[in-house]
Amino acid sequence: MEYGVIMAGGSGTRLWPLSRINRPKQLLPVVHGRTLLRLSYERLLGMLPPERIFICTGAMHREIVLADLPELPPDNLLGEPIGRDTANAVGFPAAILHARDKDAIVAVVSADHVISPVDAFQAAVRKGFQVANEHPQMLVTFGIIPSYGHTGLGYIHRGEALKLSNGVGGAYRVQAFKEKPDKATADRYVESGRYYWNSGMFVWRCDTVLGELQAHLPESYAGLMKIAAAWDTPQRDQVLNETYPKLPKISIDYGVMELASQHKGKAHVAVVEMLVQWLDVGSWPALAETMPIDEHNNATEGGVCCFVDAEDNIVVSDDPDHLISAIGLNDMIIVHTKDATLVCPKNAAERVKELVGRVREKFHGKYQ
Amino acid sequence: MEYGVIMAGGSGTRLWPLSRINRPKQLLPVVHGRTLLRLSYERLLGMLPPERIFICTGAMHREIVLADLPELPPDNLLGEPIGRDTANAVGFPAAILHARDKDAIVAVVSADHVISPVDAFQAAVRKGFQVANEHPQMLVTFGIIPSYGHTGLGYIHRGEALKLSNGVGGAYRVQAFKEKPDKATADRYVESGRYYWNSGMFVWRCDTVLGELQAHLPESYAGLMKIAAAWDTPQRDQVLNETYPKLPKISIDYGVMELASQHKGKAHVAVVEMLVQWLDVGSWPALAETMPIDEHNNATEGGVCCFVDAEDNIVVSDDPDHLISAIGLNDMIIVHTKDATLVCPKNAAERVKELVGRVREKFHGKYQ
Repeated sequence: MEYGVIMAGGSGTRLWPLSRINRPKQLLPVVHGRTLLRLSYERLLGMLPPERIFICTGAMHREIVLADLPELPPDNLLGEPIGRDTANAVGFPAAILHARDKDAIVAVVSADHVISPVDAFQAAVRKGFQVANEHPQMLVTFGIIPSYGHTGLGYIHRGEALKLSNGVGGAYRVQAFKEKPDKATADRYVESGRYYWNSGMFVWRCDTVLGELQAHLPESYAGLMKIAAAWDTPQRDQVLNETYPKLPKISIDYGVMELASQHKGKAHVAVVEMLVQWLDVGSWPALAETMPIDEHNNATEGGVCCFVDAEDNIVVSDDPDHLISAIGLNDMIIVHTKDATLVCPKNAAERVKELVGRVREKFHGKYQ
Repeated sequence: MEYGVIMAGGSGTRLWPLSRINRPKQLLPVVHGRTLLRLSYERLLGMLPPERIFICTGAMHREIVLADLPELPPDNLLGEPIGRDTANAVGFPAAILHARDKDAIVAVVSADHVISPVDAFQAAVRKGFQVANEHPQMLVTFGIIPSYGHTGLGYIHRGEALKLSNGVGGAYRVQAFKEKPDKATADRYVESGRYYWNSGMFVWRCDTVLGELQAHLPESYAGLMKIAAAWDTPQRDQVLNETYPKLPKISIDYGVMELASQHKGKAHVAVVEMLVQWLDVGSWPALAETMPIDEHNNATEGGVCCFVDAEDNIVVSDDPDHLISAIGLNDMIIVHTKDATLVCPKNAAERVKELVGRVREKFHGKYQ
């Protein structure tokens, strides 16, 4: 049977002060009033019934996730007691689903991006399911056709086309994963037409990915198996809380995917093209791309605004009655929340994380 | 007997959004936690007992003024039902005091500026009282020695030195009042050593200024006399509210002082040097001169701040718990209040009034 898992973790620093530890980016209603989690859930709902969609998130976000997704069976929320990086975050649902369904195939998607059109997303995921069905040892990744030489993303170098029952096209063996390149390399990748942006989304048979975890990350595998064995018993929470925090922290990319791409395990890696616009909203300028703009190219969301000679600003508030006003202001980001305000030029947006670190130091967890 | 009157009106637009219609500049606790009104009151307290200090302000500010000045006898608060410009604002207390004390001499001071040292202020006011005592027909103005050719102020051209019982010095006849000059003229004034900034503060015998009002502004005079006659009777409020709003709107400068300087009435005009630093805090950059600064020359007041690479900013909040944070920000003004935030570069500070007009139009009185 096919399942979907949405990864909805996140530390909530890059969209601070709107995002907070207890309300990370994916749980903010920032895209036309909907959360990224909600949008991600709705993309899967077109293909899978609610009972086969799972959410993997921090346990502390349980209430807020359930409020955002009222259709979600509460038991489908897998709450990590503490984040242990992506190898465990993807292994956790794989172990649970495999314990219930030996033939479980799961699409692991993120809630980090605004993705459109939904049709193209779903077509790619369906092809991912097909690849995993027809090639049980394949770990399927999704590649986004790069629109420019982005140096902040990993790339997937595709190899030969993969043969499927209905012909060839849109699915390839992976020749190599490439870490974030320098600009010249990134441009070369784009020009070659043989590289994709690594979307961080996957489809695989649960038994296949668990086999790789067993081979390469035996400690994680053992812990996850223990959790899965206790999951549908009264010991669920106790075992989870005892075991999960001790799992070794490692990403699925380093821990499994790269090794698999080098044929160091039993699995192989495929990449399926996902022909979508893929908008990372992990910074204020990126998020602003989704906001309404006024006649002077000011992107605004929440709050009320009054500007005199203000152009190309980004203004966000969590209070629909708070007035944000500006005179003679350009290319500035203003974010207002009940207890904190951020003002910074757009070109300093990437440094919000640094500021949040300073705030943490200075105020010992307040405003986080 | 000698009296003090503090003029504390104001529309509250230039320090918006902290200043509001119901809390104008003089009533904001912005100078080390004290209001300009309070500072002005304390300057007079050194010379006059509380029962001889009066406040002339908008009637709507009664409660907030009394809270700020608990020592003030509530009856010493003269509340204008509506502002009718300075000729009436100074005539109002003159009429009331004259009805009680035919020899009343009053120092009319403003609460618009931060003035230091207090000693020098008091020495000048004492000399003003002396001039009015020895020259009963003199309307005394106070002149500030100009530190540069300010084009936003009126100037006083001094004439011959005035003889006083204890000799000559620091008091002069006024040759002419000069309106705001252009820069070249202002510089010439400063260079000459014979011009002062017009402080807008006065000392006069009440009968003398009332005589001039009678001669030049008979309608105002009649109205004010009517109010004064009813003041210490049960009809005070009724007569005040009926009469005051109908007084013709005109400034004491145009209505009396300029005419007197041209010898068009019975009074004459003197100027007493006030050897003080005289800081207009009618804009955010000016107010910032009174605020504490951090090691990067950020002036902050109220609220808590966290900056990364931020220099020469002005940050004000009315909420001691609200965090205002910035990255890569220079020469910016950020003012946070419960219901409104202002962000503008320092060089746009003079345009706050324009913004407030836009806000008034757009939100029909909200946020005012």
